[in-house]
Amino acid sequence: MHLPDRILMGPGPSDVHPAVLRAMSAPLLGHLDPDFLPILDEINDQLRQLFRTSNRVTFPVSATGSAGMEAVVVNLVEPGDTVVVGVKGVFGSRMAEVARRAGATVHTVEAPWGNAIDPQTFIDAVHRHEPVLAGLVHAETSTGVHQPVADIGAALAGTDTLFALDCVTSLAGVDVRIDDWHIDAAYAGTQKCLSVPPGLSPVTFSDAAIERVRNRSTPVQSWYLDLTLLLGYLDAEGGRTYHHTAPISMLYGLHAGLDLVLSEGLDARVARHERLGRMLHDGLASLGLPLLAEAGHRLPQLTTVGLPEGVDEAKWRTRLQDEHGIEVGGGLGEFAGRAWRIGLMGHSCQERNVLLVLEAIERLLSAR
Amino acid sequence: MHLPDRILMGPGPSDVHPAVLRAMSAPLLGHLDPDFLPILDEINDQLRQLFRTSNRVTFPVSATGSAGMEAVVVNLVEPGDTVVVGVKGVFGSRMAEVARRAGATVHTVEAPWGNAIDPQTFIDAVHRHEPVLAGLVHAETSTGVHQPVADIGAALAGTDTLFALDCVTSLAGVDVRIDDWHIDAAYAGTQKCLSVPPGLSPVTFSDAAIERVRNRSTPVQSWYLDLTLLLGYLDAEGGRTYHHTAPISMLYGLHAGLDLVLSEGLDARVARHERLGRMLHDGLASLGLPLLAEAGHRLPQLTTVGLPEGVDEAKWRTRLQDEHGIEVGGGLGEFAGRAWRIGLMGHSCQERNVLLVLEAIERLLSAR
Repeated sequence: MHLPDRILMGPGPSDVHPAVLRAMSAPLLGHLDPDFLPILDEINDQLRQLFRTSNRVTFPVSATGSAGMEAVVVNLVEPGDTVVVGVKGVFGSRMAEVARRAGATVHTVEAPWGNAIDPQTFIDAVHRHEPVLAGLVHAETSTGVHQPVADIGAALAGTDTLFALDCVTSLAGVDVRIDDWHIDAAYAGTQKCLSVPPGLSPVTFSDAAIERVRNRSTPVQSWYLDLTLLLGYLDAEGGRTYHHTAPISMLYGLHAGLDLVLSEGLDARVARHERLGRMLHDGLASLGLPLLAEAGHRLPQLTTVGLPEGVDEAKWRTRLQDEHGIEVGGGLGEFAGRAWRIGLMGHSCQERNVLLVLEAIERLLSAR
Repeated sequence: MHLPDRILMGPGPSDVHPAVLRAMSAPLLGHLDPDFLPILDEINDQLRQLFRTSNRVTFPVSATGSAGMEAVVVNLVEPGDTVVVGVKGVFGSRMAEVARRAGATVHTVEAPWGNAIDPQTFIDAVHRHEPVLAGLVHAETSTGVHQPVADIGAALAGTDTLFALDCVTSLAGVDVRIDDWHIDAAYAGTQKCLSVPPGLSPVTFSDAAIERVRNRSTPVQSWYLDLTLLLGYLDAEGGRTYHHTAPISMLYGLHAGLDLVLSEGLDARVARHERLGRMLHDGLASLGLPLLAEAGHRLPQLTTVGLPEGVDEAKWRTRLQDEHGIEVGGGLGEFAGRAWRIGLMGHSCQERNVLLVLEAIERLLSAR
């Protein structure tokens, strides 16, 4: 394998700390080994701290973030159910599509690319449609928008609607408070602000969500993602019944990555992302480049920036990679061909990376 | 993490070669990096060699073997379709359940635990029910039975029934010939005879299977496993469209593991499993222990063996682990509480392991 040395400043994966890579290279225990199960329990405890939740059902799904999205939807939705999804980019659209494939009637609440969804508009839509599930993307990786959710959670608390939040890019990068915000189900990715390789999706479900799953009248359409079966293995009370073979090495990596997050401290980590994201935003603005996410709702860990008219963005992106070893992401959807997505996630979120990418972009601009 | 030193001789995961663990500890490339995509292409080429197929659509699903099973079923089955599944243990039952959750009417062809399914009985059932999909488990990990499939494939070739084969435990351990046997869809696991950590499921689909997927009248119920979407990323002709983030580190490990398989040579690897499996079977018989899979259909890589009356199998299994660091598996289903499953898979399939486990069992028996 030819593996050039890259600095990963795209929309994920982010650079992985050497301690995580070391953990993944340990010889394996079996998934039912009495010395492995406590490691799984510790991971779930660590995840509860990151999600700021006391949810008993908190664990990593054995697949990537999009499978975490699917796990939340297919467990909580039955054919014929009504679902409301906020759509302001690729990942909101994806959640709506996953819900349709689960047999739901989906109503979307939309905002233009680069904008957050107005909380009151979303709350009104939920009151109007009375869905079983209302879903939002916290950190929209396609637009760099930071969606406010606390007021929505407060408004939906006590209703029959479960509130689901996509935390793939938000977890451990900006504040995430599952319990304070009355979130019933959330999913994340490992390859963003956790800086663990892609392959797992941490999820958490409230007791109300679990009760909904237990009271379904139809089986969950996915056997692999069926919570009631998964709990037989995950939960010591479930008797540790074999379901599928847990991805041992990825779990070793996740354990090490979560250790790093908790050693730094969640508040300190969020503050680091905030400070360096702002430094990047200010630097790009100084270079005369437009930030595409609306002011006040910009994610520090994922920045969408417009390129000057006439620039071949793919060619510039290739130059950044070939000349400096820096990976940034191209725009998606409405931003395709005219914007970049610059990630400052987890271990990639370092001041030296901000300085480097700003200097490299300045040189591309000057040499035009 | 407390990680005791184990020899993995259970039903998987098997011991992982150090070269695979080293590959997994390499810093990451992005999933769209022009230097990563050729690695993915090479993996798919390697997998074609292992499956002995020219199927264009051959790749690792980004989740474990059970998700590979689900990928095959949900892509090839639409609600209301008829499916025939051979059931002779846990994994046949699982395939039937996954098909039911995809909306199929499922007819099972059963054999007692420890027996193979009679090929003619299976063929007759397929002719009677004319299903869209007929599924069998090649190496039944719960019973240690090696299912003959070549005659079934020949009989179904040219009919409208697609033939699916579970190769989770068979691939690279016994002969697997997708094209010669007219298999339309197959899935495997990485943590068995490939000796790569769990987390990926190599799959392969014939052109007829892909045509079936493309002509569906309903969307695939799983967005994550939808082949038509996955091909946009996997296939250079698909434009390398982002679908989900590929599990980079696991793919590095798979690439290294497949290199090891192909360096040894498939025939040599199958012969090694055959020779050492027979040595284990003979040794267990010499100790007076009954082999639970019928003669003539015993897998070399997974042996089910009965324990003497009155033995507490869980306690003996714990002693084997605590005193000698050897993991074997307990019996499942009808064999629970009275049998062990001893794996000799991939890197765990070594003569020294056969000698060790036989000697350790002999001592347990003598000390009764």
